[in-house]
Amino acid sequence: MKPGKNMEYLIHPKSIALIGASSKHGKPGNTILYNLLKWEGDLFLVNPNEEEIMGKKVFNDIADLPPAIEMAIIALKAAASVAVVKECVNRGFKILIVIAGGFSEAGAGGKALENEIKQAAAEKGVRLLGPNTLGVFIPGKGPDTVFVDHGDIMFSSPGGITLISQSGSVGVEAPGAVGVIGWGLRAFVGIGNRADINEEDLVEFFSHDAGTRCLAFYLETFAHGRKFFEKCKEIVPKKPVVLLKAGRTDMAARAVASHTGKIMAASGRVLQGACKQAGIHLADDEEKLVDYSKILSQEPPACNPKVAIVTSAGGYGIIALDLLAGTRYLKLAAIGEETQKKLKEKAIPFASLNNPIDLTASVDNNMIAHTLDCLEDDPDVGIILTVIFFSTPNVDFHLIDVLAQHRKKTRKPLVVYTSYGPYTNERAHQLYDKGVTAFTSLRRAIEALDILAERGYFLSRG
Amino acid sequence: MKPGKNMEYLIHPKSIALIGASSKHGKPGNTILYNLLKWEGDLFLVNPNEEEIMGKKVFNDIADLPPAIEMAIIALKAAASVAVVKECVNRGFKILIVIAGGFSEAGAGGKALENEIKQAAAEKGVRLLGPNTLGVFIPGKGPDTVFVDHGDIMFSSPGGITLISQSGSVGVEAPGAVGVIGWGLRAFVGIGNRADINEEDLVEFFSHDAGTRCLAFYLETFAHGRKFFEKCKEIVPKKPVVLLKAGRTDMAARAVASHTGKIMAASGRVLQGACKQAGIHLADDEEKLVDYSKILSQEPPACNPKVAIVTSAGGYGIIALDLLAGTRYLKLAAIGEETQKKLKEKAIPFASLNNPIDLTASVDNNMIAHTLDCLEDDPDVGIILTVIFFSTPNVDFHLIDVLAQHRKKTRKPLVVYTSYGPYTNERAHQLYDKGVTAFTSLRRAIEALDILAERGYFLSRG
Repeated sequence: MKPGKNMEYLIHPKSIALIGASSKHGKPGNTILYNLLKWEGDLFLVNPNEEEIMGKKVFNDIADLPPAIEMAIIALKAAASVAVVKECVNRGFKILIVIAGGFSEAGAGGKALENEIKQAAAEKGVRLLGPNTLGVFIPGKGPDTVFVDHGDIMFSSPGGITLISQSGSVGVEAPGAVGVIGWGLRAFVGIGNRADINEEDLVEFFSHDAGTRCLAFYLETFAHGRKFFEKCKEIVPKKPVVLLKAGRTDMAARAVASHTGKIMAASGRVLQGACKQAGIHLADDEEKLVDYSKILSQEPPACNPKVAIVTSAGGYGIIALDLLAGTRYLKLAAIGEETQKKLKEKAIPFASLNNPIDLTASVDNNMIAHTLDCLEDDPDVGIILTVIFFSTPNVDFHLIDVLAQHRKKTRKPLVVYTSYGPYTNERAHQLYDKGVTAFTSLRRAIEALDILAERGYFLSRG
Repeated sequence: MKPGKNMEYLIHPKSIALIGASSKHGKPGNTILYNLLKWEGDLFLVNPNEEEIMGKKVFNDIADLPPAIEMAIIALKAAASVAVVKECVNRGFKILIVIAGGFSEAGAGGKALENEIKQAAAEKGVRLLGPNTLGVFIPGKGPDTVFVDHGDIMFSSPGGITLISQSGSVGVEAPGAVGVIGWGLRAFVGIGNRADINEEDLVEFFSHDAGTRCLAFYLETFAHGRKFFEKCKEIVPKKPVVLLKAGRTDMAARAVASHTGKIMAASGRVLQGACKQAGIHLADDEEKLVDYSKILSQEPPACNPKVAIVTSAGGYGIIALDLLAGTRYLKLAAIGEETQKKLKEKAIPFASLNNPIDLTASVDNNMIAHTLDCLEDDPDVGIILTVIFFSTPNVDFHLIDVLAQHRKKTRKPLVVYTSYGPYTNERAHQLYDKGVTAFTSLRRAIEALDILAERGYFLSRG
């Protein structure tokens, strides 16, 4: 079977059957129904014991549904799911999402059940997501089968990141945490036990998806290993790929074995080598996974890794340099004489016009605009990192527009580190809403920039 | 002069003269006046050209003030400050804070001015803070001379951390950023150009201050170097010291020289050695400075560095292990058979009772309470790290009280990593308000725990 077959129904099915739709608060079949009420398509609910839920008619039997439904969400326990999968396959449904745990991750009995559904689907070319998965969430007009709290508030407007996760919690909590400063999800796919659909199918599929600007993976084990890296290597020239591979240390490897029932193969060093060769950006925690995918989905690759730092506080300039010295790719740009002369025209006398450029606490919106313009013209500068404290007296929220305007015209990566006490997240999110990439810690900003330079390096290798 | 002389007036003066009090919004002398209106003590305003500001009488001449005022804040430009310093010295004032920049950091002319005020104060044993400083902020009943936005909202209730900073911005912005998840300031002191009072005086003074549970330093250069380390070594058995030394890389060292007018001495490696010997915890960015001081001011030292991890999501358990493997001091605890037997009594069948203990998404408040009790009794466990997602369906905000109760009775360090989408900071702050140490990224939690284990190691050396 070609990986691509029927995969399109994963993100834009025209019809969905929710089998195990429930009126009982807290049940997955209830939460998923609640999510799908917002979805605009043909929704069919199935439950043998209900007539109507939330004002919608309920079918008592799968046999009563129209044929060839594009997506069936099976929100039943493991044992009950098996017969239903077979029935859905026989009815010619295109893609099935099996929510329940209690399959291969739960021992020999569950493994047998999983083999049954896997085989049933494979025989007819029906695609299967899961089991043991939160399913999919496609912000905007797509389906949402995620049956836990998941930051709806933040992700109602779609972005360019497709997140594929072997852990439901990581897939939901990591974007939820970064969402407070702005982050854009194109698609979430929980691969669960990947009885059928695995990370390789998804690389293949989303490489053709116009909405996906960056692919982010959380994996504890690989379905096949080498094949995943080969597929990534093919698409990396078009789209960046970030990977958080949990369980890369011996300490963690033993735990992965007990969590997923599979022994992980690659050690940390082997993994690093394979990623570098394939052009995959390796993240080592969940915050970096979302930060790296944020910057890669928003900023152009940094082909010139020389950074100009613009700050209103000398101390932060120095901390930035210490952090910069610890990166793998970033270098410090030399601010040219001509640029310094131009900078001087609007800077205050005390300002330091060498890199880091310290505009001092007397900085105002115009000085920042002028500085960014000057740096745009300096050929040695490849990347601009701007430190913005909204607490300095002559800077106000209109600076957000100044930065947004610069973002629109510049071809160089621009990243803001901002802090403003209790209003920090709010300001960072306002910047994000206007297309400006902002982080709320200097370390996060610089580590993300390093990845942008790594992207430039990967692309330059051809 | 002994370092201790008159230093007590820095935090609890009974009388303050604000020289350069201003009615003009945006001027330091205006902002400081606004801050001091909340202060309960004898406040005298001085300005030759005003009669009354904000309803308070203004003195036109320092000569009209009562003698022996305990603190004078001089909010005038550099040149004008010199004569005023001399007058204050002659009037017998105890401690002077000179706000203005334009002294030694601004070249030879400024250096001469600085020498004048330094000498004038030294002759009569008057203490001088600054010049080129934000001064002091003592939440609660102390003075506040910080003339920029500085997270009042968050720090109105005092905590146990004394932050001494050579950079005003770092001193203000770093606590502002961490304040959203809870952080407790005892005292902020900006040392500025340290014409008189330097970091050594402050180590000495705050080592005797009952309110200070942890000392945190941001330094770009050392006043004398060795002496600071010696003083720290003396007090470390009583109180932990954290240091962010900016400019430890060559790249940054050159910038420090231009920022402070001084060449820094120690390279990164020399610094590490000196800190380890003195028992100082080294932070390498501003977030770590505040995180480390937070945990050290709240949790007991970890004399046994073996961690038990409690999670509701297997994936986060594995990420935690990968991060743990990268720490310097932390180890993984072995959960004893007896403990596992007790855990089983209340855990669900799918739960994994080996470390990391995965209570699964079915976790509820009682299971967590029970698990913490079991771990309290396990002699192999030295530290407890709990991952709390408030999104799991059977956990609610009462869990905060469960954790707070455990915090009260346990002798082991307890740290929570929590995430809850847009409500993450709020939940973390609620935990802080009840005495529970929480961080909003797994990495930050684990790096902070590593410092707690380092503290245990430093203390064990005797």
